[in-house]
Amino acid sequence: MSPVVNGFAAERAGAPLQPFQYEMGPLDPSQVEISVEFCGLCHSDLSMLDNEWRSTTYPFVPGHEVIGRIAALGDHVSGLELGQRVGLGWTAQSCMHCQPCVGGEQHLCGQAEATIVGRHGGFADRVRCHWLWALPLPENLDPARAGPLFCGGLTVFSPMLKLGVLPTHRVAVVGLGGLGHLAVQFLARWGCEVTVFSSSEAKAADARGLGAHAVVSSRDKDAIKRITGRFDLILVTVNATLDWSLYLRALRPQGRLHFVGAVLEPIPVSAFGLIGGEKSLSGSPTGSPSTLASLLEFSARHGILPVTETFPMTKVNDALERLRSNQARYRIVLAN
Amino acid sequence: MSPVVNGFAAERAGAPLQPFQYEMGPLDPSQVEISVEFCGLCHSDLSMLDNEWRSTTYPFVPGHEVIGRIAALGDHVSGLELGQRVGLGWTAQSCMHCQPCVGGEQHLCGQAEATIVGRHGGFADRVRCHWLWALPLPENLDPARAGPLFCGGLTVFSPMLKLGVLPTHRVAVVGLGGLGHLAVQFLARWGCEVTVFSSSEAKAADARGLGAHAVVSSRDKDAIKRITGRFDLILVTVNATLDWSLYLRALRPQGRLHFVGAVLEPIPVSAFGLIGGEKSLSGSPTGSPSTLASLLEFSARHGILPVTETFPMTKVNDALERLRSNQARYRIVLAN
Repeated sequence: MSPVVNGFAAERAGAPLQPFQYEMGPLDPSQVEISVEFCGLCHSDLSMLDNEWRSTTYPFVPGHEVIGRIAALGDHVSGLELGQRVGLGWTAQSCMHCQPCVGGEQHLCGQAEATIVGRHGGFADRVRCHWLWALPLPENLDPARAGPLFCGGLTVFSPMLKLGVLPTHRVAVVGLGGLGHLAVQFLARWGCEVTVFSSSEAKAADARGLGAHAVVSSRDKDAIKRITGRFDLILVTVNATLDWSLYLRALRPQGRLHFVGAVLEPIPVSAFGLIGGEKSLSGSPTGSPSTLASLLEFSARHGILPVTETFPMTKVNDALERLRSNQARYRIVLAN
Repeated sequence: MSPVVNGFAAERAGAPLQPFQYEMGPLDPSQVEISVEFCGLCHSDLSMLDNEWRSTTYPFVPGHEVIGRIAALGDHVSGLELGQRVGLGWTAQSCMHCQPCVGGEQHLCGQAEATIVGRHGGFADRVRCHWLWALPLPENLDPARAGPLFCGGLTVFSPMLKLGVLPTHRVAVVGLGGLGHLAVQFLARWGCEVTVFSSSEAKAADARGLGAHAVVSSRDKDAIKRITGRFDLILVTVNATLDWSLYLRALRPQGRLHFVGAVLEPIPVSAFGLIGGEKSLSGSPTGSPSTLASLLEFSARHGILPVTETFPMTKVNDALERLRSNQARYRIVLAN
């Protein structure tokens, strides 16, 4: 195998991606090397490209929704084989010995390394990760579409599993984008009553097609005000600032407003608004490998995949522009 | 029994209490009438007296931590006997047929009536409630001190039970007052590691005496900053505005900042601060009759009672002044 990796990198914040070659050095004994077939394009790739979270190093190679085949195995790798098709998401490495790691919450490891933070990601022909974070792709999930399950999918599936969402629950999803359109599918197959809040009237039919029972315009404050005490869970997948007090009111007693979208402005919460109805506000990042394995099994059994648009990897800048201009319906995948 | 009740009422917001006689009319078939022996003085009595929550009607008779004996039974009352000693807390009535009611969460009933909202409370010789909300007092709990368990105690005990606090957890209690000093006792007997945040240096010894393992000054920002990722739960029993971001940082992954104190100013929450460590912010009011029954059994078994100061009911204004000036150590009980 050539020691040189062919990827696409930005030289500085917001710059277009350009062909970029680099070497990865000797393979760590606990790592696998993946020959990238497909890689999803996530909104976090854009945030990182623009250095919005102040953690980007350049040259920056985005990409953390990888599908590919194991091209090399470190000496200490468990449970994976050369040539096996796997996926890799946001997290590429965790310490394996802290309490979250040994407790099965490896995504909360304080030493966790993200696939595209301080390392080169999946917009390349090869990428590496710790064996724990390369999960075998079930046979009947289309590899050309499955990549986004590993980050966007896990981000919305993990709270469903970890927060104890029940099929009897009424759940609302705020935002029908890369994350939201997967959340709707998961929740509908989970047996929940699903409502979508979207700012785009044009997406209402899509939302229903994906399994939503109701669609409410997030621009229609009066319509939202009329919904009080209804939802067990409201899952916020957008990063815009909305009138959160209305959404808290829309929760039923003991309901929860849960954020997976990185809303940057502080959310002003009234303690009274929480106390009276025993309501919660919470957030979560992606999820653990164990949760990801459950997601893959659930998705394979129910045929859940993102709605994707495919671009060749060489057209990565067109793909970025499409995502940036909010045109993607609903997730972009780059193909090598 | 005389149809006239002798109580103490305020004629307007913030006014001193004065002797006040009133009639309660025929007893509802589902209600009991309690002959009041003791009644705790809760901070909510002050808030209501001052009409801080805009829900007070005058003349206003405070008092919702009642201990007394059943003096009259309605025809449809279940499970209680004349002369039996019972306690009554914040809630006096619930509809019995809504989903929270039939689900055992009667304190979340939308039609619930509080003992002192729109009706006359326990600073009187008699008070009434629906039979569900009059709970028998265990024999070995001192009736002269047990009243505060029914509101202040339930408020801090309910989240311990409902949020799944485990004896392995590290829990912090913010504020050592009427609520906090009961929370410390419950948590210590629950087997938790207990830390108290208090603005009063003078209370540190008391906190340790009640079972706290550590005490941190809530005025010492540097000390709080040094605590990161430590607590599974931080229970806020104060209604002051603190630098909540510091307390969120002090939570370990999946930790929860829980409010039982009615903090009036909005709490600015960063979604990022919640997402990274899967943290939650939540609140709760008092609790259900079932939870109250568990509290009474747990308290009786562990000998948990508030630290009280007793005033004769006729000295109610002195008691109010002592609470208002933050002198009470730690809960005042009025005796008839």
